[in-house]
Amino acid sequence: MTNIQTPICPMPLAHNEKIVLGHGSGGKMMTDLITKTFQPPLANPALDAGNDAGVVQPPPHTKLAISTDAHVVFPLFFPGGDIGRLAICGTVNDVAMMGAIPHYLTASFILEEGLPISTLVKVVDSMQAAAEEAQVQVIAGDTKVVERGKADGLYISTSGVGTVMSGHTVGGECAQPGDVVIVSGTIGDHGIAVLEARGDLGFKTELRSDVAPLNHLVREMLGVSDCVHVLRDPTRGGVASALNEIARQSGVCVTLNESAIPVHPSVAAACEILGFDPLYIANEGKLVAIVGREDAAKILDVMRQTRYGEEAAIIGEVTESPAGRLLMKTALGTTRVVDVLAGELLPRIC
Amino acid sequence: MTNIQTPICPMPLAHNEKIVLGHGSGGKMMTDLITKTFQPPLANPALDAGNDAGVVQPPPHTKLAISTDAHVVFPLFFPGGDIGRLAICGTVNDVAMMGAIPHYLTASFILEEGLPISTLVKVVDSMQAAAEEAQVQVIAGDTKVVERGKADGLYISTSGVGTVMSGHTVGGECAQPGDVVIVSGTIGDHGIAVLEARGDLGFKTELRSDVAPLNHLVREMLGVSDCVHVLRDPTRGGVASALNEIARQSGVCVTLNESAIPVHPSVAAACEILGFDPLYIANEGKLVAIVGREDAAKILDVMRQTRYGEEAAIIGEVTESPAGRLLMKTALGTTRVVDVLAGELLPRIC
Repeated sequence: MTNIQTPICPMPLAHNEKIVLGHGSGGKMMTDLITKTFQPPLANPALDAGNDAGVVQPPPHTKLAISTDAHVVFPLFFPGGDIGRLAICGTVNDVAMMGAIPHYLTASFILEEGLPISTLVKVVDSMQAAAEEAQVQVIAGDTKVVERGKADGLYISTSGVGTVMSGHTVGGECAQPGDVVIVSGTIGDHGIAVLEARGDLGFKTELRSDVAPLNHLVREMLGVSDCVHVLRDPTRGGVASALNEIARQSGVCVTLNESAIPVHPSVAAACEILGFDPLYIANEGKLVAIVGREDAAKILDVMRQTRYGEEAAIIGEVTESPAGRLLMKTALGTTRVVDVLAGELLPRIC
Repeated sequence: MTNIQTPICPMPLAHNEKIVLGHGSGGKMMTDLITKTFQPPLANPALDAGNDAGVVQPPPHTKLAISTDAHVVFPLFFPGGDIGRLAICGTVNDVAMMGAIPHYLTASFILEEGLPISTLVKVVDSMQAAAEEAQVQVIAGDTKVVERGKADGLYISTSGVGTVMSGHTVGGECAQPGDVVIVSGTIGDHGIAVLEARGDLGFKTELRSDVAPLNHLVREMLGVSDCVHVLRDPTRGGVASALNEIARQSGVCVTLNESAIPVHPSVAAACEILGFDPLYIANEGKLVAIVGREDAAKILDVMRQTRYGEEAAIIGEVTESPAGRLLMKTALGTTRVVDVLAGELLPRIC
C-alpha cells in the first residue's frame, strides 16, 4: 500500500474569507463550508446525518402541505429583517396558509463568487433564529456557486413541508358569500422598508419590515373556529393581488372598506409621495383571512392576543357578484374596482 | 358602484417574447406566465388548485425523505439533457438514495430579465417529460425575476418529498466491512458532455449526459434485497467524492478495483487529454451502492435488467481500516489513496 496521506485537517473558515467557485465543487472546500457555516447553527438530527435527503417521521394519517419560494430580495439586509429571515418566514407562511403546521424546511443557496463568508454567516444565523421562532427544522440543504456577476450576492430557495390540521379545509377556493375579510395588521410595511433600505424613498422613516412567521397565529385561529375558509399571506402584489386571486378562485366578489384597512402612518406618507397604493405593497408578516361571519369576532379576538395579530381588523366582506372581482368602498362613499397589477411595481422585494 | 371594468382577457404569451421584471411582480403578467407556461405541461390537482402550497395525502405511517437541490448548469442545454431534466432528476435521485419512493416535487425558478420565453417553455416541457418518466408530480412552484446580468438565463431549485420503503434503512453511515461496492454504469458521462457543450473539449464526441431518474432502478434493487446499505448518486465531485464521504460517515475503508470501473471510451479519451480523473467527474444518472456481499449477485442481476443499470458492475469492497479512506487498487497492482477534491474541477456542472 503506497501513498497513504495523513488525514485532512481542515482549517476553520475565517469570516473575512470570500466565496470562491471551489465552495460549490462537491469537494473539500464545500464540505468545509457546509460543516462550519451551515450545520452548526441549523443543527438537527436529519440535517446532521449528512445524507442526500433528510429523513423524518411525520404524524400518521395527515395530509401534507408542501410549498416553495425563491428569495432574491435586494438589498440582503433591511430594517426589520434580511434575506435569511425572509427565506424561512416566506415558506413557513405559505405552508401555514393551507391550515397546516410547518415542520420541515429545505434551503438551497446560490452564492455569488466573492460573497464575504461573514455575510453568509449572518444570513444563516438569521435563518436559524427565524426557524427557532417558527419551531421548524431545516433538514436538507444545497449550495451552488456561480461566477462573479451571475448572481447578486446570494439567492435562497426554501421549501416547506407541514401537516394539515385535521378538520380544516383552507384554500383560495373556499370563500363563501356572507364571509368577512380580516387582515392581521398594518399593510405595506415590508415593501416600504425595503424601498427605504435601497435609498429609494428620499427620506427616513422608523418603519421596519414586518417579516415574521405566522404559523403560531394561524394555529390560534384554527383552534377557536372551524370557519376559517381562506388564509393567504399578501406578499408580492400586496393585499389587492391576494384578494383578487381569491375572488377568482372562489368565484365570489370581495368588497373592502377603505377606512377599516390598517396602514402605518409612514407607509401612508411614503405611498402618498411615491404615488403608490398600499394595497399593492408587499407584506411578509401579514395574512388575510376569509372567515364565516358567525366566528369573526372570536377569531379577531384570539388574533389580537398574539404577537403578530395585535392590530388585526375586519376590512371587508364577501358577496356573490360580480364574481371574481375585488371592490373597494372608498372613504368618500364611492365603490371602485381594485384590479391586479398589470406589470411590476417593486422588483426584487422578496 | 362605479368604474367596473370588463374582466381582463389575457393575451396568449407569444413564445418570441422575453422575460421582463413584471413577470415576477405578483400581478397579471406573473399569473399569465404561470397559467400559460408552467401549469399546462405540469398539470396535476395539487398544482392546479393555485394555492400557496400543494396539499397531498401520503401513505400512512411512512417516514418521509425530503431533499433539495439548486441547479445552475451552464449551458442550459447539452447533449442528452438540459437544466429542466437535470432539475427533476437531481432531486428525484436524492430522494431515491434514501431508499425512498419520490412522489412530490416543488420547483422555484429564478429567471433573468431577457430570457426568451421559448427557452423557458422548452425547459418546462423537459421537466414534465422527466417528471412523467420518474412518476412524480410538481405540486408547487415559484417564479422570481432578476435584472439582466443578475442571473445566467435561469436557475431552478427543486425539492422532493418521498416515502421511505419500509424495512429499509439506507444511509451514508450504513456501510459495513465485508460489503461490496456497485456502480450502476459508466462514470463521468455528464461532466464530459457538458464540457463538450461548452466548447471546452476541443474535439467532438458522441457522448451524451447520463442525466436520468434512478428511482425505478432503486425500487428494483430494494425489491430483491434487504442488504442495500448505502445508495448515493455521485454528482459534483464524482464517484471519488461520494465514496470518500461514505467512508467517513460509516468509519470504514472503501477500496476500488481500477480495472473494474466502467468508463466510456470518449470519457477516458477526454480525461486523458485534459488531465482529469473520471473518478472526479460528475454523473447525473448513476448511483453507487454499498450492499451486503451475500446479495450482491442478485442485486447486480436485477440492476442489469433495468434501463439505467445495464452496465452495472462491482467495483470495490469495504474493509475496516484505514477508517474514513478511499483507496484504489490500480491496474498496475499498487494501491493509492483517492482523496476528495480540494477545490473546483468543473464549475456550474449541475
